[in-house]
Amino acid sequence: MRIDEIVAQLGGQLLGTPDTQIRALAPLETAGPSDISFLANPKYRKQLDTTAAGAVIVGKGLTPPAGKSYVVCDAPYLYFARVAQLLHPEPQVKGGVDAAATVRSPIPASVRVEAGAHVAESVVLGEHVVVGAGSVIGAGSTIGAGTRLSANVTIYPDCVIGSDCRIHAGAVIGADGFGYAREQDGRWVKIPQTGRVVIGNDVEVGANTTIDRGAMDDTVIGDGVKLDNQIQIAHNVKIGAMTAIAGCVGIAGSTRIGARCMIGGQAGIIGHLEIADDVVVSAGTLVTKSIRKAGVYTANLPLQAHGDWVREFSHLRHLDAMAARIRELEKRLDKGEASS
Amino acid sequence: MRIDEIVAQLGGQLLGTPDTQIRALAPLETAGPSDISFLANPKYRKQLDTTAAGAVIVGKGLTPPAGKSYVVCDAPYLYFARVAQLLHPEPQVKGGVDAAATVRSPIPASVRVEAGAHVAESVVLGEHVVVGAGSVIGAGSTIGAGTRLSANVTIYPDCVIGSDCRIHAGAVIGADGFGYAREQDGRWVKIPQTGRVVIGNDVEVGANTTIDRGAMDDTVIGDGVKLDNQIQIAHNVKIGAMTAIAGCVGIAGSTRIGARCMIGGQAGIIGHLEIADDVVVSAGTLVTKSIRKAGVYTANLPLQAHGDWVREFSHLRHLDAMAARIRELEKRLDKGEASS
Amino acid sequence: MRIDEIVAQLGGQLLGTPDTQIRALAPLETAGPSDISFLANPKYRKQLDTTAAGAVIVGKGLTPPAGKSYVVCDAPYLYFARVAQLLHPEPQVKGGVDAAATVRSPIPASVRVEAGAHVAESVVLGEHVVVGAGSVIGAGSTIGAGTRLSANVTIYPDCVIGSDCRIHAGAVIGADGFGYAREQDGRWVKIPQTGRVVIGNDVEVGANTTIDRGAMDDTVIGDGVKLDNQIQIAHNVKIGAMTAIAGCVGIAGSTRIGARCMIGGQAGIIGHLEIADDVVVSAGTLVTKSIRKAGVYTANLPLQAHGDWVREFSHLRHLDAMAARIRELEKRLDKGEASS
Repeated sequence: MRIDEIVAQLGGQLLGTPDTQIRALAPLETAGPSDISFLANPKYRKQLDTTAAGAVIVGKGLTPPAGKSYVVCDAPYLYFARVAQLLHPEPQVKGGVDAAATVRSPIPASVRVEAGAHVAESVVLGEHVVVGAGSVIGAGSTIGAGTRLSANVTIYPDCVIGSDCRIHAGAVIGADGFGYAREQDGRWVKIPQTGRVVIGNDVEVGANTTIDRGAMDDTVIGDGVKLDNQIQIAHNVKIGAMTAIAGCVGIAGSTRIGARCMIGGQAGIIGHLEIADDVVVSAGTLVTKSIRKAGVYTANLPLQAHGDWVREFSHLRHLDAMAARIRELEKRLDKGEASS
Repeated sequence: MRIDEIVAQLGGQLLGTPDTQIRALAPLETAGPSDISFLANPKYRKQLDTTAAGAVIVGKGLTPPAGKSYVVCDAPYLYFARVAQLLHPEPQVKGGVDAAATVRSPIPASVRVEAGAHVAESVVLGEHVVVGAGSVIGAGSTIGAGTRLSANVTIYPDCVIGSDCRIHAGAVIGADGFGYAREQDGRWVKIPQTGRVVIGNDVEVGANTTIDRGAMDDTVIGDGVKLDNQIQIAHNVKIGAMTAIAGCVGIAGSTRIGARCMIGGQAGIIGHLEIADDVVVSAGTLVTKSIRKAGVYTANLPLQAHGDWVREFSHLRHLDAMAARIRELEKRLDKGEASS
Repeated sequence: MRIDEIVAQLGGQLLGTPDTQIRALAPLETAGPSDISFLANPKYRKQLDTTAAGAVIVGKGLTPPAGKSYVVCDAPYLYFARVAQLLHPEPQVKGGVDAAATVRSPIPASVRVEAGAHVAESVVLGEHVVVGAGSVIGAGSTIGAGTRLSANVTIYPDCVIGSDCRIHAGAVIGADGFGYAREQDGRWVKIPQTGRVVIGNDVEVGANTTIDRGAMDDTVIGDGVKLDNQIQIAHNVKIGAMTAIAGCVGIAGSTRIGARCMIGGQAGIIGHLEIADDVVVSAGTLVTKSIRKAGVYTANLPLQAHGDWVREFSHLRHLDAMAARIRELEKRLDKGEASS
């Protein structure tokens, strides 16, 4: 693709040779003359002097060194993402049911069902849905147009998934929430989980992520939410539109998360909390109370060499005594100063 | 169902109109006139004044407002669970092997094997077992009557699962434990994992939870244990009856956990520990030593706005110096007071 | 097997009766007269007086009690692992494609493809590869000789897996990395994940572990790496040879980990870091900065009874004030001493 064709489609200002041929995307360090790269952070500006990239996407207000082509735009990383989509469009898939699949509902001819997949009774699939090899869709579930399930995905009965979603391998949507009442002798009595999972449009669900069905209510994932791998979302959780959650996060039951939040990897959020819109939670942070205000929240520990950790953290069991000794020192000094 | 029919079956004292029709369960806030709800915590008693629920399950020693029906009982939440089971009985399933399943062992006619499932040689299945679509049961495994596997479950060879269990989608039971000896040059020599996984009766295993087989011994899960999603249980672990474990917990090898414990979400327990009966571990807590006594145990951090966290937690690397300064102050003050 | 046959094959010095019959391996506490056991730690030497084991593997420089057979060697645990492999060789598998599998590529006759498995187009499989029931191999992937996939494994298209690997059930290799650019209104624009996953030889991947494909570059797992269950490895991560990672670890994008590292369970490593060779990370530790030097690194909390935790950890929000009070005390005391 010629660089001027890219700019014609995506906008931005072209500096340099319009017929520069672009074959692939690459980071500045490894890019060659037929690659396009990007400079998202002006701090790394000096990489422009050494990169062999044929073209670089840069932000405004930067005078790049001569000798190569540039695309100047407002948001280089976003522009880069769009170029990447242009150069690597998602492959079209051909509709059709593999002879080794079992489909028990009427589905559009544009739907692709791969080998070993199983579509149960009363399932409704939109146009161009892809059901990957070995995936299972339970009775009564509905999946919107253009949504693609990778291999070995499980959708339990009576779930609703919007259009243009991507569900990665091993994801499980609609398993029972973890709800029991306790007998006096300790035995657990299961509470039937009669709600559904309802997922909006343009949602991505990572590999081996699990989203439980609601207890009486539904579990709801808003439009444009992005979930990484191995996330656990418990029953009755609600997640607002465009929130992004990194890998290995756990969200306990009935918690509500606002729109446009970003939750770092391995964070945890306990149950029955409210998280406002535009909240950022740092990696590894356990959220133990509601967050009412947008902002960044953190609870994790500084990494230490093991010996330092032993020395410093042995005091964590004695903070109260330490505070008491400070109070005592203050009292003694007050008394001494008063009497002198 | 009429409220008096419910009370006839489950006990408790009925106040109000015996022929109140109950169609569903709902929380107090959203319940309507044909819903039954419950008040588990007397603290929220004033919700009784505003709820539109047709009937409410309440504890003893509470005088509820007139105008609706009540069921008075000892344990409202437990009663509610039983009503839920009455109104939403688990659907009966029809026995039979789907034409798209492969079954290589003789099994009872009451067993249901769904499309794409695979039952290997020498497997023993009890009456009414359900093998969900795409699930795989390895050779020589035994599964007790009434146990149900959801879709895409994997049971490795030679495992034993009791009766009336529920195993959710993507769970993996009996994979090799993580056991190696190390060569001097760093290479790992695998130790064959020759034990089994032995699971009791009435156990629930959540979606994508993994339970490894033992090394020389077995991994053992007691009767009535409830495991949420994405839990990892390593080789040779023993878990006592009726213990409940929330999502994303990891338990390392050879640890023994007592009966009736409750382990909070994302907690971790390192290997070779002993946890007593009736221990409660808070969410996100890493258990690094044995717990000999029932009680609640915690190790997690207070959530903070990021700026506060930077300010407060920068001191965590200097606790030892802080303690030394306090000791020094005490000495100086002792000396000063002695000399004055 | 006779003990002298074992020593003939594996080396070491035999003390005692050469024709002692060994049938199984067992820990010292439970071993019987036809079991072989081992003493890895001389600290537990007195167990030799009470064990009923027929033979025990011991280290040099130890004078064991008479009356049973011993194998004396440099590294008892490693020797034990080799004996275990001798007594429990991995079962040979018979090649062949199950009638209920779908294979769309030419494969060697020695390859075994089990029921419900799916091998897509343009896949290259080495000799003796095993594709377990329900596993899916995407188009264009390559798997080296002797590698075995358990049940319900997913390999995405265009991945490369070396020889003699073991991939456990539910593992997902090659799902899209979590990469998006953000529009000003909060919408996420997906960055096509065009790299691959490249896995070396003799790698073990645990159940439900996920390894994402690279964004522009590849995700690379070195030879001899051992990964436990439920590990998440993000796009573009590189892991050096023979590194071992315990369960539930998460590694964020573009991080490079050296060779022969050991990462404890539930540890997390944030993105874009460099971890040197021979680094050990303790369980539950979040690594938030690069580690340039071999050694042990830790960041976790002491477990406490809940009441102690409340008392001690309430001070964590006031460390800065505590430090300020200590400084103030020092100033007052300096002033007092100066004036006296």
